[in-house]
Amino acid sequence: MDLNTSAPSVAALRIDGARLWQSLMDLARIGGTPKGGVCRLALTDLDRQGRDLFAQWARDAGCTLRVDAIGNIFARRAGADDSLPPVMTGSHIDTQPTGGKFDGNYGVMAGLEVLRTLNAAGVRTRAPIEVAVWTNEEGSRFVPVMMGSGVFAGAFTLEHALAQRDAQGVSVGEALAAIGYAGEAGPAPAVGAYFEAHIEQGPVLEKHGRVIGVVQAALGQRWYDVTVHGMEAHAGPTPMELRQDALLAASHLVAEVNRIAVNRMPHARGTVGSLEVFPNSRNVIPGRVKFSVDLRAPDDAQLLDMDAALRSACARIAAERGLRVDVEQVVYFPPQPFTPHLVEAVRANAADLGYGSMDVVSGAGHDAVYVARVAPAAMIFVPCADGISHNEIEDAEPAHLEAGCNVLLRAMLAAAEVVS
Amino acid sequence: MDLNTSAPSVAALRIDGARLWQSLMDLARIGGTPKGGVCRLALTDLDRQGRDLFAQWARDAGCTLRVDAIGNIFARRAGADDSLPPVMTGSHIDTQPTGGKFDGNYGVMAGLEVLRTLNAAGVRTRAPIEVAVWTNEEGSRFVPVMMGSGVFAGAFTLEHALAQRDAQGVSVGEALAAIGYAGEAGPAPAVGAYFEAHIEQGPVLEKHGRVIGVVQAALGQRWYDVTVHGMEAHAGPTPMELRQDALLAASHLVAEVNRIAVNRMPHARGTVGSLEVFPNSRNVIPGRVKFSVDLRAPDDAQLLDMDAALRSACARIAAERGLRVDVEQVVYFPPQPFTPHLVEAVRANAADLGYGSMDVVSGAGHDAVYVARVAPAAMIFVPCADGISHNEIEDAEPAHLEAGCNVLLRAMLAAAEVVS
Repeated sequence: MDLNTSAPSVAALRIDGARLWQSLMDLARIGGTPKGGVCRLALTDLDRQGRDLFAQWARDAGCTLRVDAIGNIFARRAGADDSLPPVMTGSHIDTQPTGGKFDGNYGVMAGLEVLRTLNAAGVRTRAPIEVAVWTNEEGSRFVPVMMGSGVFAGAFTLEHALAQRDAQGVSVGEALAAIGYAGEAGPAPAVGAYFEAHIEQGPVLEKHGRVIGVVQAALGQRWYDVTVHGMEAHAGPTPMELRQDALLAASHLVAEVNRIAVNRMPHARGTVGSLEVFPNSRNVIPGRVKFSVDLRAPDDAQLLDMDAALRSACARIAAERGLRVDVEQVVYFPPQPFTPHLVEAVRANAADLGYGSMDVVSGAGHDAVYVARVAPAAMIFVPCADGISHNEIEDAEPAHLEAGCNVLLRAMLAAAEVVS
Repeated sequence: MDLNTSAPSVAALRIDGARLWQSLMDLARIGGTPKGGVCRLALTDLDRQGRDLFAQWARDAGCTLRVDAIGNIFARRAGADDSLPPVMTGSHIDTQPTGGKFDGNYGVMAGLEVLRTLNAAGVRTRAPIEVAVWTNEEGSRFVPVMMGSGVFAGAFTLEHALAQRDAQGVSVGEALAAIGYAGEAGPAPAVGAYFEAHIEQGPVLEKHGRVIGVVQAALGQRWYDVTVHGMEAHAGPTPMELRQDALLAASHLVAEVNRIAVNRMPHARGTVGSLEVFPNSRNVIPGRVKFSVDLRAPDDAQLLDMDAALRSACARIAAERGLRVDVEQVVYFPPQPFTPHLVEAVRANAADLGYGSMDVVSGAGHDAVYVARVAPAAMIFVPCADGISHNEIEDAEPAHLEAGCNVLLRAMLAAAEVVS
């Protein structure tokens, strides 16, 4: 199967950018905020309204619908050979409390636009096409995040997910039943290929003036709590040479965390996002500092190398400064490479369509990251304004959304095979 | 006047270390805490009890007492020539809420012990001797700190001090009247020489194994608020080269503040005691960091040089990292050198008595720092255990307290001149 060629009738096929944009704007009215964002938390009545709208649109596009036991929706357009595993796309329509119109929603509406485009052109595929709406990707109301795709991929059990409760004590199972999206349990069906279009949620494409991000992998993550134990003392009477300043040691470590990632550019990341000083008084030498470390890398070897570099820096600075540094890993999320031939299909089709593209990594989690554990998978990124996401001012260019959807269409057709 | 020689009868004179220790322990019972500390806040009834005890002891020692309008107590032992300005010693007996037995109290009890020693030996001085109890040095209940000596030295007005209120709304004036220590207003009388014995409240003497600290100066202080304005962004999708990480820039500045002081050892100090990160979330690159800077130096030229180095480091790091750094000075307290011939008297008498001494600076504020603005002044430090003060476990060796008091006796006698 050559993914880069399409039947001659398909080579000229393009999605309808205006229709895609209109779908996004229509969906964004459900839970729309005065500032132009969206608040549509998972499994709320607003989520139900969004799901109902998608379901109606999918039925209007001739799809059959299936809902699984964690509430994932699959809209299926029949193929010539329905015994083949489907070529799937999708994302989520739940948002952050002060979320935007594009995060997740774009991937679902782009899938819908692919269905509508195929219908309008009368294109028939050998494998069926499916558009998935994954439950609770954001994790704002219920954790874990990426819940629907996580259950689908076996990252955790259905029972575990259904038992989770929100701040008001409502369980996922109860909330699913309340909105009418508790579907049938059963093993997850095979998927032939999975593509997910998404806004980048970062600044790379915009800074480089590229329209399509060819996503190589989702970064693995190791998170740590680091505590520096020094000696609290008065800032005035304690000379420099007799100090064990926990903040000074922590500051050297913040610089080290940065250096560890800079030495492994372009894809590695190292961040100290949170830092607390005790007693945090202007004229007291800090006795204790606690901070977070977030290391990310595209493969496990590099991530382990960064882990070793962090531990070595902590040990060295503790020895040099005569104080204690405790390092505790609190989260590990493995790197997830995407499937090379699908990644290549994204790259080749972007080139074929004349869109400037570049190889990128996904620093954040996405449903595709879990799906990639059980099926061939790839992602298509498009730019978002100033790299801003999880914010009501999240924005994207219609032309970029259209381009990403055209790449999605071509990559899916190549995977599903056009038969007429 | 040769400060290093005493009349032959005086050369063998020594204070009574056991009596000094007993006075300290008796005074410490007033406001004594279960953990062995003292809570005797300024102008409370416990402060009154402490003042009354001192006043009674001073009267028993043949002194006349005067109380000024801010409540400072002066116990006077007449001299052969009472037209001469007195040679004065003193300190404070108010404490921190969880204070110790020695901070301040030692300076007052050492003065009392000098009076008792002179009485026992029948020594007559040309100038009168006075022991001062300064009001509200600690500033725990009322600010500003060092209130009594500050009014005495004209650092701020009597009216300003009397109008200050505690957390319950009680003014200094009302509290003074309530405990019966609102004395007569009037210009501060001249002082011939002022000595203050105090525990070091730092670790230097203990670390160097010395008994007497010959205090050269009180460090000047410049305090700043520094704010680094970066760009908040998600830690995952934002590659290292596109970040404006406010905490990374702040960490380089913490190291710079340390370096600025280390380059000016032994007396300069540079401390970042307080630091806050916004939004302080584990997987968000910090957009803003606010921190304090506390720079101290023994003379204004060095302090200004450190100020320039701080501002230059802020400007350099802002330019290098493409973010904004705001620096605002919020406190300036001038360096206060002590009077050379009195400092020399402390050093020479310590040597004469066979006590190991070293030159030190005072990193913290003391009543002597204000008195030095209007009179020749010097301080005598003795070690405290582990450099700990402002703490109920504050401790000092009886032998060290005795040594400091013997140096005080000799220095005061040299200044006041023994006539018989």
